[in-house]
Parts: sequence; structure tokens; C-alpha cells
Amino acid sequence: MARGALDEACPTVQRALADADLAVVAVPLGALADGVRATLSVAPADCVVTDVGSTKRLVAGIDDERFVGGHPLAGAEASGVQHAREDLFQDAVWYLTPHAGSSGVLFERLHRALAGIGARPAAIEAEAHDRLMAAVSHLPHVLANVLVGEAAGASAGETMPATGPSFRDATRVAGANPELWADILMANADTLVGVLDDALGRLAEVRTALDDGDHAAVLALQTQAASERRALLDAALAGGGRRELRVAVSNRPGVIAEIALALGREHVNISDMALSPSPDNTQGALALWVPDADATRACAIVAALGFPVV
Amino acid sequence: MARGALDEACPTVQRALADADLAVVAVPLGALADGVRATLSVAPADCVVTDVGSTKRLVAGIDDERFVGGHPLAGAEASGVQHAREDLFQDAVWYLTPHAGSSGVLFERLHRALAGIGARPAAIEAEAHDRLMAAVSHLPHVLANVLVGEAAGASAGETMPATGPSFRDATRVAGANPELWADILMANADTLVGVLDDALGRLAEVRTALDDGDHAAVLALQTQAASERRALLDAALAGGGRRELRVAVSNRPGVIAEIALALGREHVNISDMALSPSPDNTQGALALWVPDADATRACAIVAALGFPVV
Repeated sequence: MARGALDEACPTVQRALADADLAVVAVPLGALADGVRATLSVAPADCVVTDVGSTKRLVAGIDDERFVGGHPLAGAEASGVQHAREDLFQDAVWYLTPHAGSSGVLFERLHRALAGIGARPAAIEAEAHDRLMAAVSHLPHVLANVLVGEAAGASAGETMPATGPSFRDATRVAGANPELWADILMANADTLVGVLDDALGRLAEVRTALDDGDHAAVLALQTQAASERRALLDAALAGGGRRELRVAVSNRPGVIAEIALALGREHVNISDMALSPSPDNTQGALALWVPDADATRACAIVAALGFPVV
Repeated sequence: MARGALDEACPTVQRALADADLAVVAVPLGALADGVRATLSVAPADCVVTDVGSTKRLVAGIDDERFVGGHPLAGAEASGVQHAREDLFQDAVWYLTPHAGSSGVLFERLHRALAGIGARPAAIEAEAHDRLMAAVSHLPHVLANVLVGEAAGASAGETMPATGPSFRDATRVAGANPELWADILMANADTLVGVLDDALGRLAEVRTALDDGDHAAVLALQTQAASERRALLDAALAGGGRRELRVAVSNRPGVIAEIALALGREHVNISDMALSPSPDNTQGALALWVPDADATRACAIVAALGFPVV
């Protein structure tokens, strides 16, 4: 309150949600599923409820139509309200995991609210999300820990040695918030073990090439990594203009989730969306904004689902 | 010449070095030792010769008194003269590997020249340098390659998925300049294999803890990484004032190298140095600037070598 971060503090969740349009459950992973259920039990009938947990299978079983799971890919080294920044979510990917029964109107409201604070919402299935996070978030944290361990070992317990920028970049997240991250890694342990096995295999391959003095194999691995990184950058930099798609949809639950998931599966980013129900409330017009380059493909994906689209 | 990067272009090394005080050999690792020897063969008698190779054992056998090995920890994603920046070496650690016969006067000239462009020169033995680089530079590059491979695998060959900032930081160096980096990794292959074995062991330990559902073990590993990273940051941030040490030294070869290596071994950073030979050239006064916090320790280290120091 003193910092102006809250407009109003409430003694109970029920009181806080009395007139709420949107509720965000931000609690430790161990309390996540119960926290979402408790919130849904007191939230108004037209309030969308989401969460920010890093593992989405934890809430995949909650089928209330007001619920849409969420996970923003944003963070900072400094935590706590005293380090709050208004640009934290600017251009950050914010994964959403709607279920088959998620309300289209409420999903759209959540999507617009997140886009409104600068984030880029993207729909994805809970299982696919957890596999992806194991590879692009949980594994990097584990490897960063290994790196600082090696550096500590290389200096034999004395003062840490001077290092270069690539080391600093690679270890920024090492040992991040131990309680929080132990929970994150444990919550996705089954998937992460599979990814670690794969990573161990890749490292063993590099080790063999180096031990054999096989210059061609080392060069091939480095060249492959270069092309994989180039593909990542191209994907991240794919920007430019946006095109509007207009889709006629029936006003039944799950329609918006179905379309968003189909586009998310094909990595089409929805910059913005707007849903306009027809006067009799049985039909609706959905407007989607997607990158220019993806517009034709997005039309085909939506059309393949059986929806009229222009 | 057109960009102003060169004042004068010379058709031969000999011509370029005619009046040179300092020569920097910057060639691929495969040509490094021969390049240094060829340069020494035509450099003037009072010209200090250094190199910028990432593996220092390659030139550890060159015992010309004018030679001091070097390796700046600086770089950028974009290479080539068109991407030159005057601040590239600002605050960058620049390792120097003087040998027992390196001239003190010439070492001091090199040290001052590097400090003059903003770098922080630090003396280290060639073997220790190569072990350190395996841990803090070569391993991070290998792990970055593994990470982009996992991300590519997670997206099953389609467009790359959206990722967060920790992934981008951890993979900035993935697939860096394949020809150059294949050479770098191969030149230090023996040391890197040992570091990889250690890293494989650490990863297997994490895997076991996750597979066993051992929350306490995962938390302990994360907590350990946090303290190791904290120690790294403290070392990097140790700043503040500087103190001047004055050391009386005999004017024989190797004296400066001996002092610089002794301080480097104890991780005392020499911010600046100045060597003033006595009129008869048999004695000298060496001034060293070290961090306030290290001054007492530095005095003891230098005194232990048998040199009078105030």
C-alpha cells in the first residue's frame, strides 16, 4: 500500500474478488492447485481465474469454465515488491493453457488484459508446455548450477577467478531462489529427467569427439548448433506487420481455446484478439491479429477446424 | 584503411615492425606458435611481442625474453573490422602468461598498454589458464550448444518455440563461429575432456535426485549453486580504492613475471604498474597498484619472494 503497488488490501480472497473481472493466483507450486480451487470457489460467476505457475500439469485437471492456466516467461534476479517494474512483462511470452471447457469470453478477456500490459499471450497444451519448459527453462537452470560448480572447482576453493562475459551470461540464473527453484524442478521432475538423459547423451558425444581428436566431428557439432541457434533467432525476430483474421464461431464453450491451441501448436503468435457475440448470443465473430508472414497459414489452420474465416 | 582502423598498411611483417614497441599476433590457433616465432624473428630487439590465443600452452615453449603470452576475455557476437568498437576491452580481464625469462621492462610496457585501453591485465601460468578456460569458457560454449539442441528437439523440427530471457542468455554463444571454436575446443581438448567428465558427474547427480523425488537433495544442490554464484559476484564486484606498492627489484629477466605470477596466483589484481630502472641499470623500483582490500596481502606475497616492499 505504501509503495502504491496495491490500490486496496483485503483481509479475505472473497472480499478481494467481490467485483473482480480477473483473478491471478500467484502462490508457491505446492499450494497452486488448492489455491486455484479455493479462488474459484469464491470468485464471481463471470470472473476469469488464472495462475502463474511454471508447471501447467499441476492445474490441468481443473475444468471450471472460468479457469485458464497461465505462465509468463519473465523474471528478474531481484525479487519482492520493492523490485517491481512496470516493464517486467513487456514483450514477454505468456503461455496460456485453456482446457476444453474454458469460456471463450473469459479467455478473450484474459488474453486482452495480458496483451494490454505488453505481454505476448500464446496458447499451448499443458503437457507440451511442461516438456518445453524442461528444455528451455529448467535445463538451463540446472546447467548454470553445474557451471558455477566447475568454476568454483577450477579455483580450488580460493577466491573466484576472473571470467568473461559468456560465463556471466550462462550463469546469471545459477542458484536462483533455492526454495522456489527446488519446487519448480521437482514439480516437473519426470519430464526433466528425460531431457537430462538426452543432454547427457549429447555431452558424451562431444566428449568422445574431443577425446578422439576428431576435428571434423567437433566442427560438425558446432556448425549444427549454429544453425539451430539461427533458427531460434529467426523465430524470435519474426516481427513486422500484423494481419486481422475474422472468424465466425459458434458460442459454445471451448471454441476459443480450440482455435488458440491449434494456432499455438503451429507457433502462430496471436498478438491480440477480440470476441463479439451475436445479438442472440448463439454465434460470435472472433477477430485475431497474427503476424503478416503467418496470416495465410493461420487462415488455413482455422479453416481446417471447420470455421469460416476471412 | 578506409574505416580508419589502420594508420598504415604494410606489405610485410618486417616492415610493419621496423619501429614497433609492441606487436600483437592475432592469427588462428593452428598458426599461432609459428606466427609468434616468425614475428619474433623480425621484431626489433626492444619490441614486446604478445598474442591473443585462447589456449596458452600452445605458446608456453617460446622462451624469447621479448615474448609474453596473452588472452583477453572479451568478444562480441558480431566479428570483423566492420564491427570494431573502442570499448571492447573496457574492464575486460586480459590474462598474461609471462615465462621465467620474460623481460621485466617489456612486460611492464605491455601491461601498461593493455591497462591504457581499459583492460585489466592479470598474470597466470599457462597450464592454470588452460584449466580455467576449460571451466569458464569452453564448457559454457559446449553447454550452450546442448541447450539449443534440446530446444530444437522440443519443437520437433518445426518453428522454434518462444523462450524466456534465461534461455537467451544461456545460449548467446551457441554455435559461435564454428571454424574458430572447433579450433579452440580442439586445442584444449585434453583439459576440456576432464572438465566434461566432472560436469557429466554433476548432471548425473541432479538426475538421480530428481528421479528419486529427493526434494532435500535438489534444494541442497540449488543452495550450493547460490553460494558459489554469490562468491563469484563478490569477486567480480570487489572494487573500491587502489593502493600503491613500491618494490625494489634487481634488473634481471623474470623478476616482474615472478611477482606478477605470485600475485595472480593469489587473485590479486594489478590495476597498473610502473618500472623505473636505477641509473646504473642494475636495480629497479617497481610500483604496483592493487585494490585497497588486497594491499596488505599483496605486500606479504611480494615480501615472501624476498623483495623489499613498502
